[in-house]
Amino acid sequence: MPRDPAEKQALIRRLHRIVGQLEGIERMIEEDRYCGDILNQTAAAQKALQSVGCLLLDSHMHSCVTTRIREGDDAVIDELSALMRKLK
Amino acid sequence: MPRDPAEKQALIRRLHRIVGQLEGIERMIEEDRYCGDILNQTAAAQKALQSVGCLLLDSHMHSCVTTRIREGDDAVIDELSALMRKLK
Amino acid sequence: MPRDPAEKQALIRRLHRIVGQLEGIERMIEEDRYCGDILNQTAAAQKALQSVGCLLLDSHMHSCVTTRIREGDDAVIDELSALMRKLK
Amino acid sequence: MPRDPAEKQALIRRLHRIVGQLEGIERMIEEDRYCGDILNQTAAAQKALQSVGCLLLDSHMHSCVTTRIREGDDAVIDELSALMRKLK
Repeated sequence: MPRDPAEKQALIRRLHRIVGQLEGIERMIEEDRYCGDILNQTAAAQKALQSVGCLLLDSHMHSCVTTRIREGDDAVIDELSALMRKLK
Repeated sequence: MPRDPAEKQALIRRLHRIVGQLEGIERMIEEDRYCGDILNQTAAAQKALQSVGCLLLDSHMHSCVTTRIREGDDAVIDELSALMRKLK
Repeated sequence: MPRDPAEKQALIRRLHRIVGQLEGIERMIEEDRYCGDILNQTAAAQKALQSVGCLLLDSHMHSCVTTRIREGDDAVIDELSALMRKLK
Repeated sequence: MPRDPAEKQALIRRLHRIVGQLEGIERMIEEDRYCGDILNQTAAAQKALQSVGCLLLDSHMHSCVTTRIREGDDAVIDELSALMRKLK
């Protein structure tokens, strides 16, 4: 199911920002920066990636899940349950 | 406190792999791939980033935290508590 | 939507077990047992309560959510999203 | 290491409140209350139990961990790492 272009770009911008955070963490490790500061940056990147997961899950539920349930395809519910247990 | 070079390289390889995962997720979004598959990849990247956090935290505790406690600097414990609440 | 009696009893047994775990933790605290052991019991109780949450969520999705989506009531999806962000 | 009595009572009061929450959830299940409401109560109990874990961990780090590190017993760090991976 094609995603709304604006939503697509927003997700991709978020991913780019997280890549930037990871590159920043890499530099801090290279420079032997204080672990506590590196860990704070890591927590921030984890939170950003968690948000991407939430946005993707919301979008999935409002589109594929809703459509497949209406088509009588309840298997999507078990799939959703499995996804939720994996996602942070 | 300078990190062991081998540990440093291992952390950086992990970060590079996560960047690769994020780039893969970006392509999947661009190609309007099925959300469930994108979410599975996102969960995998989250897990990989969680592991980086655990490794950094372990290393921090075995080095800075231990050293500062031995020097009588208990403030590191409150800092550690705050970090643990942020990390996934 | 009435829950299947067997499922109901299974959930209630799990809740009783968690209450038992919490009472055990209370005794350990009263007896000044080693913190590490108390923390391990706390982690076990957290995991048990997480499982109850997953079972309740699964059951909710297979019943209320599916039914309301088929009735055209998409608001249940936003409610589900909000619940998932709260649940551990 | 004996815990401060006031801290002990505070922890026990929290545990009693969580038992009360679980008993409330049991009643809601018995009465076939709406799943969404039951899940909200479950999330609240999870959060309360997570707080107990954080308090216990803080106390552990400020007492046993600090003492054992000063006595040169670094094994406590690996134990702490293992606990942190289990706790929610």
